[in-house]
Amino acid sequence: MKIVIIGGDAAGMSAASQIKRKYPENDVIVLEATQDVSYSACTMPYSIADPDDDIERLIVRAPEEFRKTGIELHLGHYADKIDRQNKTVSGKKTDGNEFSFTYDKLFIATGNRPFMPPVKGLDLYGVFPLKSLEHGRQIDRYLEENTVKKAVIIGMGYIGLEMCEALHTRNIEVTMVEAAPEVLGWLHEDLRNPVKKELDDKGIKYFTNTKVTEIEKTEKSFSIKTENKNFEADIVIASMGVVPNSEIAEKAGLELGPAKAIRTNTFMQTSDPDIYTAGDCACARHIVTKKCVWIPLALTANRGGRTAAKNILGEKSEFPGILGTAVFKVFDYEVARTGFNFHEAKEAGFDPVEVVIKTRSKAHTCKNSQKIYVNMIADKKSGKVLGLFMAGKEGVARRINSGAVAIHAQMKAKDLAEVDMAYAPPFSPVWDPVILAAGELAKKTF
Amino acid sequence: MKIVIIGGDAAGMSAASQIKRKYPENDVIVLEATQDVSYSACTMPYSIADPDDDIERLIVRAPEEFRKTGIELHLGHYADKIDRQNKTVSGKKTDGNEFSFTYDKLFIATGNRPFMPPVKGLDLYGVFPLKSLEHGRQIDRYLEENTVKKAVIIGMGYIGLEMCEALHTRNIEVTMVEAAPEVLGWLHEDLRNPVKKELDDKGIKYFTNTKVTEIEKTEKSFSIKTENKNFEADIVIASMGVVPNSEIAEKAGLELGPAKAIRTNTFMQTSDPDIYTAGDCACARHIVTKKCVWIPLALTANRGGRTAAKNILGEKSEFPGILGTAVFKVFDYEVARTGFNFHEAKEAGFDPVEVVIKTRSKAHTCKNSQKIYVNMIADKKSGKVLGLFMAGKEGVARRINSGAVAIHAQMKAKDLAEVDMAYAPPFSPVWDPVILAAGELAKKTF
Repeated sequence: MKIVIIGGDAAGMSAASQIKRKYPENDVIVLEATQDVSYSACTMPYSIADPDDDIERLIVRAPEEFRKTGIELHLGHYADKIDRQNKTVSGKKTDGNEFSFTYDKLFIATGNRPFMPPVKGLDLYGVFPLKSLEHGRQIDRYLEENTVKKAVIIGMGYIGLEMCEALHTRNIEVTMVEAAPEVLGWLHEDLRNPVKKELDDKGIKYFTNTKVTEIEKTEKSFSIKTENKNFEADIVIASMGVVPNSEIAEKAGLELGPAKAIRTNTFMQTSDPDIYTAGDCACARHIVTKKCVWIPLALTANRGGRTAAKNILGEKSEFPGILGTAVFKVFDYEVARTGFNFHEAKEAGFDPVEVVIKTRSKAHTCKNSQKIYVNMIADKKSGKVLGLFMAGKEGVARRINSGAVAIHAQMKAKDLAEVDMAYAPPFSPVWDPVILAAGELAKKTF
Repeated sequence: MKIVIIGGDAAGMSAASQIKRKYPENDVIVLEATQDVSYSACTMPYSIADPDDDIERLIVRAPEEFRKTGIELHLGHYADKIDRQNKTVSGKKTDGNEFSFTYDKLFIATGNRPFMPPVKGLDLYGVFPLKSLEHGRQIDRYLEENTVKKAVIIGMGYIGLEMCEALHTRNIEVTMVEAAPEVLGWLHEDLRNPVKKELDDKGIKYFTNTKVTEIEKTEKSFSIKTENKNFEADIVIASMGVVPNSEIAEKAGLELGPAKAIRTNTFMQTSDPDIYTAGDCACARHIVTKKCVWIPLALTANRGGRTAAKNILGEKSEFPGILGTAVFKVFDYEVARTGFNFHEAKEAGFDPVEVVIKTRSKAHTCKNSQKIYVNMIADKKSGKVLGLFMAGKEGVARRINSGAVAIHAQMKAKDLAEVDMAYAPPFSPVWDPVILAAGELAKKTF
């Protein structure tokens, strides 16, 4: 069988590797638009934070290593057309020449790309999104070759906040601008406020409700113009969100889902049964609602790639779905989420109840015990946990997963409150923050 | 109603407080043998580690605070007899006088005590168990008033290892002796070995298969005699495990369970329906087997006390049970467990399968990423997760709870492997250690 994979990152390469490992007799052709496959994109902000760190070390496996396993890997191959009748993928190489491959099964793993609105100046050198390793290299080089004292970051999502910390660590004065009315609008305000205070404490200036209208190159730096105010910066990071690379699928007439991500069934099949998709370009089923959602995250890409590979190989394997479980760090603050917040739960058709509790990362008798804020959401009628959100300076990141397991298991708040969790003073209060919140929440459910 | 509670620690005081909060019209009489109620016993090793720390700060609530809520609290009251016919508890006060109280409902929360075998010299001043706050005070005072250069710790359980770290932190040379053939025998050897290496790295000498036969006071120190070898020490910590304070129940003809802990039903009732029990003196139902077990831990005492209070008040409330979820720290190592290890699972009648994997606490591209060892156990036939054990220098303590939730929810390894967990380089590899282990384990189940 001839399997063509468009995209050589998390979803694509994990599928390619799995197919070759299990059934090496298949031809596996990977078409990657860039020169890089298999690198830790999420580590880039931490590498950029350290001027002595070589970003090339983030490459997990070099192209040669994949080729050794029998994968036919084509770099600099930008696929832009699928002919479903003739089962052919075609596109252009970096050198301008065209290419074309036939397939028996096609796997679209084109990922996503930074959202770049039609704002003048976003394409200037010195204005960088951060998505590909090449972006990371460019930022690294720019910081090395230029005197960068001030930065403006457009957008205050995960990547914007991580880059804020990275540049601040390099003694760059960071200003953030966000078009939305709130920073981390999806976070309950009782959790959001301490995170905002953390930004204040680190001397980060940020402006919400502030839409960039133009970026202009001045003699030595950039002028970032917004509807309200202008900012000066030596470097600009554009992190205004991401959009799925789904155009190739759309042109081929494949069904799209939310946010124009490629629609899938639980076998990672598109509306064409010979074409599969997974990762940042594709929808996935939400664990709670069983509906298609688009929440591009690294583990989802890896899991989706693995599931797609199994189904391509004829093993029926269902993808149970996702919860959008995520964690990020901004300075000393950890923020984590799994499942729905109150408003998302309402939109999904539930009658949600929620609690916010303030507790501690470890026993209060322990030095360096930190405040933790927990927001838990459940359905009033069924009592089932729908979401868990946490923020604190410590002990948040790895706690969130107990909530993720509970939601997967369709556990009720009252049952989660009764889980026998671990206690030792350096790690937890006697009542772990998660069971404490679940206990309070249970009182609000039937 | 007149409710008498024997024991004013975690289980006793949480029950007393709850009863007074909900139905203040009840008389609540607490009989506490010592002078202390409500302190963080588990923090004592960390307080002792710091010569400048005042151990009195571990008192969470003073007796007066409880009395203000209407609890009739009697300190220095050692109860030693229950007359079930006349519903009377009697005993001796510290001043030698006798006391007697009648009850409508009785709650036994006598806790446990250090196991002290009949070894000559264990009662010498300078040889200390660590259970009560008074023990902590004595150790503190002894370390202050004496030149302590060498310590011998008898027993290598949680408390022994925590005290090892505490005394080592105070620049005391620590030697540990353990009667059992192995250190942490319940831990898979692949997890146990790195912990042992950590002890070696810190210069701790330890001897297994080494039973203490006598402790002798020499001119300036102690001579600890064992079957194989003698040791010198300026202080001795006796941490050879604990036994339940169940004699008062036994004498009253109440049924006992494993380890002679007081048998309970799920309503925390003893074999006498007017007598309840919980905490370190009592059995509790195991979540997996539904059988009575004795695993004395702080959260269990708090949960049990709460449940007992509800039932005493006539609200029918079942205690779902325990998993023995626990975590401790020895130097830089975190060790955590929940549920059954392979041998315990076998003994409980399962046909267990297990995996041990070695992975990392965070992305390998992150600096300070540490090795984590994960041992997961499932039932071969049903595929259900039965236990999770982890050891590593970081990222273990709070991860264990996701395993605890999974076991509570009776989740199969293959389903746990599909939980959408949080990923960010500073906190986790893309595949969290728990889902990675679950995925490997699922392959071994039907």
